[in-house]
Amino acid sequence: MAELSQLIDSEVFLAYATYTTIVLLKMMLMSVITAYFRMTRKAFSNPEDTATFGKGENAKKFLRTDPDVERVRRGHLNDLENIVPFIGIGLLYALSGPALSTALLHFRIFVGARIFHTIAYLTPLPQPCRGLSWAAGYAVTISMAYRLLTTGLYL
Amino acid sequence: MAELSQLIDSEVFLAYATYTTIVLLKMMLMSVITAYFRMTRKAFSNPEDTATFGKGENAKKFLRTDPDVERVRRGHLNDLENIVPFIGIGLLYALSGPALSTALLHFRIFVGARIFHTIAYLTPLPQPCRGLSWAAGYAVTISMAYRLLTTGLYL
Amino acid sequence: MAELSQLIDSEVFLAYATYTTIVLLKMMLMSVITAYFRMTRKAFSNPEDTATFGKGENAKKFLRTDPDVERVRRGHLNDLENIVPFIGIGLLYALSGPALSTALLHFRIFVGARIFHTIAYLTPLPQPCRGLSWAAGYAVTISMAYRLLTTGLYL
Repeated sequence: MAELSQLIDSEVFLAYATYTTIVLLKMMLMSVITAYFRMTRKAFSNPEDTATFGKGENAKKFLRTDPDVERVRRGHLNDLENIVPFIGIGLLYALSGPALSTALLHFRIFVGARIFHTIAYLTPLPQPCRGLSWAAGYAVTISMAYRLLTTGLYL
Repeated sequence: MAELSQLIDSEVFLAYATYTTIVLLKMMLMSVITAYFRMTRKAFSNPEDTATFGKGENAKKFLRTDPDVERVRRGHLNDLENIVPFIGIGLLYALSGPALSTALLHFRIFVGARIFHTIAYLTPLPQPCRGLSWAAGYAVTISMAYRLLTTGLYL
Repeated sequence: MAELSQLIDSEVFLAYATYTTIVLLKMMLMSVITAYFRMTRKAFSNPEDTATFGKGENAKKFLRTDPDVERVRRGHLNDLENIVPFIGIGLLYALSGPALSTALLHFRIFVGARIFHTIAYLTPLPQPCRGLSWAAGYAVTISMAYRLLTTGLYL
């Protein structure tokens, strides 16, 4: 287990673990927000979810889409599309031996940008707030990928 | 390569690898189930997919949504939303040196909950079957994240 | 840091890192293509995105779905559904000590198949081009999972 503890003792890897956990917890929060809006807006996708509101036609009217629910769902999917590349490329980046300060800068900008992206999406703030926060996270991931491909390319 | 084999020889890591592989294979099965329902229900999204059913108006009528296909797709997306955090947080958790029995408990509950979630979604079983299986998997991931953030926080 | 550099010096792991980065960059490209089609087709999901086109009814007509935008989004979701299992299972596979040539064969076929899948989806090429490229990537992931479960099962 010596190697494992040394791996986890590397400060860059610890920072990666911390920021990845935070941004994944933020993404998981989207599920709870979706459930909250589905219940307060009474807008469901599955017939079995509306059973508590009665039977037949009475329950059927809750099988509908709601703008607020759809907005949260778009934010959630955008998270998936952007956080998955960050986790994959970020792990390899953290193992490629970057300077701690550079790595921290990448991780902090990404996590900050994604949190701001969610706020901008759900409020909603006027554009280009959401667009710029998306671009900041995207640029961080590209920057890490660039380092990986220029230092350790193996085709 | 000594370090690599020691990494992969850790029992906790082997358990993580096994359960992650199983739950990802389960998620991949959703693609096949979607394809199966698309073909039996004749409900497609792309014009090129309906070419075998003839041309023009005859093929166009198969460009439609079907409740069963949409149900599988919702289950697939829910898998993505929940399995991605499990893989990311679970990897870091497995490397943080938890007791083997505790780790196995986390992995087994998560994989069991996600398999039951799929059964509850596709049957469909009455609520709160699906809701509770979703919550069980969610709670496992939160528990692993809590351990990570309380033992190895690096901001 | 000795162990980390040895980990990252393993040729199989380097190959995994390279191909994972490439396929994730390809997936990230889908976001840009979606944005491009949304702007050229003037088809948006959020009211705040249409503010530059004027106010009231004038802007509202751009809140619509467009076949080209939806096509890219389906390709993006298909990427997520297939690349996430590849990254998770591929990482564990790369750490399980496969022969370099076998590992390279797996990674190259997968990345090639996913790039061709995107071309087949966006052109669109007649079926079964897209279906076969999807199946090739799927088979690679199943093959890696099979090796993992037959050599290192720990339940």
